[in-house]
Amino acid sequence: MFHALDIIGTLAFAISGALTAINKKLDLFGVLTIAFVTAVGGGTLRDVLTGSTPVGWMLNLDSVYIILLGFCLSALFWRRLEKLRVSLFLFDTIGLGVFTMIGIEKGLIAGLHPVICVALGTMTACFGGVIRDILCNEIPVLFRKETFYATVCIFGGIVFFALRRTGLNIDIIYAASSALIIIFRLLAVKFKWYLPVLKV
Amino acid sequence: MFHALDIIGTLAFAISGALTAINKKLDLFGVLTIAFVTAVGGGTLRDVLTGSTPVGWMLNLDSVYIILLGFCLSALFWRRLEKLRVSLFLFDTIGLGVFTMIGIEKGLIAGLHPVICVALGTMTACFGGVIRDILCNEIPVLFRKETFYATVCIFGGIVFFALRRTGLNIDIIYAASSALIIIFRLLAVKFKWYLPVLKV
Amino acid sequence: MFHALDIIGTLAFAISGALTAINKKLDLFGVLTIAFVTAVGGGTLRDVLTGSTPVGWMLNLDSVYIILLGFCLSALFWRRLEKLRVSLFLFDTIGLGVFTMIGIEKGLIAGLHPVICVALGTMTACFGGVIRDILCNEIPVLFRKETFYATVCIFGGIVFFALRRTGLNIDIIYAASSALIIIFRLLAVKFKWYLPVLKV
Repeated sequence: MFHALDIIGTLAFAISGALTAINKKLDLFGVLTIAFVTAVGGGTLRDVLTGSTPVGWMLNLDSVYIILLGFCLSALFWRRLEKLRVSLFLFDTIGLGVFTMIGIEKGLIAGLHPVICVALGTMTACFGGVIRDILCNEIPVLFRKETFYATVCIFGGIVFFALRRTGLNIDIIYAASSALIIIFRLLAVKFKWYLPVLKV
Repeated sequence: MFHALDIIGTLAFAISGALTAINKKLDLFGVLTIAFVTAVGGGTLRDVLTGSTPVGWMLNLDSVYIILLGFCLSALFWRRLEKLRVSLFLFDTIGLGVFTMIGIEKGLIAGLHPVICVALGTMTACFGGVIRDILCNEIPVLFRKETFYATVCIFGGIVFFALRRTGLNIDIIYAASSALIIIFRLLAVKFKWYLPVLKV
Repeated sequence: MFHALDIIGTLAFAISGALTAINKKLDLFGVLTIAFVTAVGGGTLRDVLTGSTPVGWMLNLDSVYIILLGFCLSALFWRRLEKLRVSLFLFDTIGLGVFTMIGIEKGLIAGLHPVICVALGTMTACFGGVIRDILCNEIPVLFRKETFYATVCIFGGIVFFALRRTGLNIDIIYAASSALIIIFRLLAVKFKWYLPVLKV
């Protein structure tokens, strides 16, 4: 089931990247590239920094095909997809929860410290969007006054390591932590929670 | 002969990077750095993502010296080089064909899937320019409405893998595919072929 | 003592990154991230390019904690820190000298050519700021008409390798070269030395 959610997340990230690129008036190669980096950029950065190379999408092509699908869907139906913002937002939020846990899992496998694992989870979930924004020549939306995004990943990561001390089944902890991230993100958007900006 | 073409391509990329940086009014260190990343940025990204480290230019300093030469030529003769745009464009196009094949070869050596090899070839040839544009704070020209650039690399890569099935001598296939990229690129510029932009 | 200077440099880089991000009106997560990449971005790039992974800060968390301290100090006292520009500049300059030598040392351990070692030293000291500026959507200040910054690192690196031929004690050479970088940087700022820009 986790794998199915991974696919949903990748597809949502790819489509959101493609739609951003289309709105930026990039050509089809630009749209494909931005869809690609939005979907796998965070995980790629994580793999490069931890030395897990060749990076994930080079060895298992599943995400490549899902991104190509997302790219084709976006190129054909971008006007309609714009109107499905709510569904896309839900898929994106699922991706946020799942990718955070995938990043944490990779960190644990590499034997890294919990603080680094939480950073890797957040990076996996959030930094594809950062690379997308850099390529589109904008200050990453992640760093600006927005509803909680990276914050919910960090929070979910901390909860994961707190639950892990209880000795509960690890699969349950992964499921619970990603569910918590998803719920927290939905609440944050609904109630417009955001981090403060110091200088106004 | 392939190696001689590699040198021509590296020199052309370094000079094109240096001229861009000079036009952006960067200082000499900025010009050197941009020349450097334009020439070896694509190959460096490929090496990092595939885990071939230390990256190429750290082990074989040939490209470092060629880039330093291109930097000195640019710093001394930038006004005249601006007028040699046509020659530089030809050298750049040779680099495009050669670097694509070098990237594909590295992918094959690493045992990666043809789809990934084509991506690595395109990355090697095109992503130095992407990093150059990011450092110069512009949306990468590669993603905008331009004549075919990355597209000819992808096309050449597909032709390479089609020819490879015929059992022809591999060196001939490399030469034919890079020649095809060069010709296709020249035609694309002459006849102003480009990829569509969806939103106008 | 070298380690104490390393801490001072990391703290200064983190605070300078945080203050930049606060002035750019980023939210707290943005401030934390920019503080982080400013402090460890150069060393991280060096580790990734040389294949020393997982990168340094994932294995030894000292710099993570120092950056968190710098982040907290900046978030609480940013108005006052702005007025301590001179002290911060001194700390930053110490970081410049120390980080250059750390980068050169890593290159030597990896058995790389002196030219590459000098590049790695300069990268370690200067490229955190480059990544900071890219994330803040500005042309890196390092590439613009500034007082010598990267130039003093390159100069210090060349002096290091010249002294190394004399057979002097290596610790003395490290100390002398980093001291030279610090002094040269202070003089460059005082007397407004900078590299030329070709096009005016």
